[in-house]
This record gives sequence, C-alpha cells and structure tokens, in this order.
Amino acid sequence: MENPFTDEYFMKKALQEAEMAFEKDEIPVGAIIVIDNKIIARGHNLTEMLVDVTAHAEMQAITAASNFLGGKYLTGCTLYVTLEPCQMCAGALYWSQISKIVFGASDENRGYEKMGAQLHPKTTVVRGVLAHEASELIKRFFALKRK
Amino acid sequence: MENPFTDEYFMKKALQEAEMAFEKDEIPVGAIIVIDNKIIARGHNLTEMLVDVTAHAEMQAITAASNFLGGKYLTGCTLYVTLEPCQMCAGALYWSQISKIVFGASDENRGYEKMGAQLHPKTTVVRGVLAHEASELIKRFFALKRK
Repeated sequence: MENPFTDEYFMKKALQEAEMAFEKDEIPVGAIIVIDNKIIARGHNLTEMLVDVTAHAEMQAITAASNFLGGKYLTGCTLYVTLEPCQMCAGALYWSQISKIVFGASDENRGYEKMGAQLHPKTTVVRGVLAHEASELIKRFFALKRK
Repeated sequence: MENPFTDEYFMKKALQEAEMAFEKDEIPVGAIIVIDNKIIARGHNLTEMLVDVTAHAEMQAITAASNFLGGKYLTGCTLYVTLEPCQMCAGALYWSQISKIVFGASDENRGYEKMGAQLHPKTTVVRGVLAHEASELIKRFFALKRK
C-alpha cells in the first residue's frame, strides 16, 4: 500500500490552518507539527487578534508541541508551514532542535534565508511543497485588503 | 538636577529580573521595556519552567508591552536586556519596530550579531551596559550547575 503520509498530505493540513487565519482577517499562514505521522500541534497566524508580533503560526505550534511532548526539544518532529519561516521563527526552531522543516512558499523579503538567520545544523529543510496554493492564498488576502 | 533615568538605571531593573530567573534555576537573563522613562513590561527567562524554548525574557517583555500599549508596534520604546538577544528575539524585535535596544553582555556564541540575524533599520543599539554584572551572574549560574 502506498504511504498516505506524504509531505503533501501534511502540508494540506497546514493549509487548512492558513485558511482559518484568512477567515479571521489575519495574514494567512498555517503550521502543524508532526511526530511519527501524528499531528501533535497546530497553529495559525494571530498577530492581529492577539496584538502580538510573536504570535506567528510556527511559534504557537512550537509551544503547543512542547506542551504535548512535555519537553522543550522537538527532536524527531517535523514542522509543516505554508510560508518560509521568518528570523524569529527560524530562531525558535533553532532552539527546538527540530529534525525537519517543510515549507510551502518562499518569502523573498522577510524569509530567514534572505535575512540571514540560521537553523540548527541537525535540521533538514524541504522547500516548495504546495507553494502555489500557499502563495495564492496570501495573494488573495492582500488583494482583498487593497480593495 | 541630574537625570536619574540613565541606561544604567534601567539596566539595573533588568538585572533584578535576571536575578529572579536565577532564583528559579533558569539561565539568568532579564529584560524590561520602557517608554517615556516608565517601565511598561518586565520578563525573565522561563524556558525550563514553561518547557518552552520561546519563553525568553525578551519575548515575554515584548508580548507584555504590546498588551500594555494595546498595539503590536513598540515605536518609542526601549528594551533593556542583560544579554545580547538571540536570533529569535532579534526577529521578534524586528517585527516590533522597537526604537532602541540596550543590552549588557555580548553572547559570542548565540547572539544575533554572530548568528547573522537583522534588527529593524529604525532600531538603534547600545551595547555593554553593566555587561560585567550580567555576565558574572551567568557565570555564577553555570559554575553552580557544574558542581
């Protein structure tokens, strides 16, 4: 039987989180954290609702995953996030020693790769999974904002 | 009359926060945020107690200051922190557009300057205020840990 738990499978779950942010009038970015093919944390951007620049999807997912695991290190975990993490989130992921990061769309302006922030040497990165879907959602959000 | 509200004055308040972290068996780093010479937020490292890599002193102070101000931008604010911010905290400070950062000891290994993360172009930085006191506290903490 084919393995149903592909990166695309989990990125769709992260996209569902991004849709929830969209519905709350937040920049639509969503994230989940997975261990052994089980989703242990979900988060979506809530910077406007919480009036807090630190309330990115990834930050909430990291905190939730640590709560679930009862430990602050996310070794063995994979983060799926619809947009490339920023410096702040990359820095948090660095401290978490997360094993793998899968992101959708690249952020050419404020992504951690452009900004120069570093991930943990133990972390592997997969880029561009369902990138079109993720960036279309963000474009749709800003198109509505400009109206 | 001499202005009592110097950088040293406020850094002493941040050092008091660091002492509180020390007493809780946390790596002793403390932070406060000031606007118009008024302290509007305090935080100290709680990563062990909260089991959360994101619970740095600065992150908590940023969230608390935004709560106080009712807005997510910290324009006009100054952060005093006993240790140079890491990438994560520098990234959060970037998003906050904070006006000024004053830090004590440099972090040669994990500080944002070494790691390559960027602050907001509007943010000015003052380094080394009560650096000796800040680093002595951290050294004392790790000396006890090694016993």
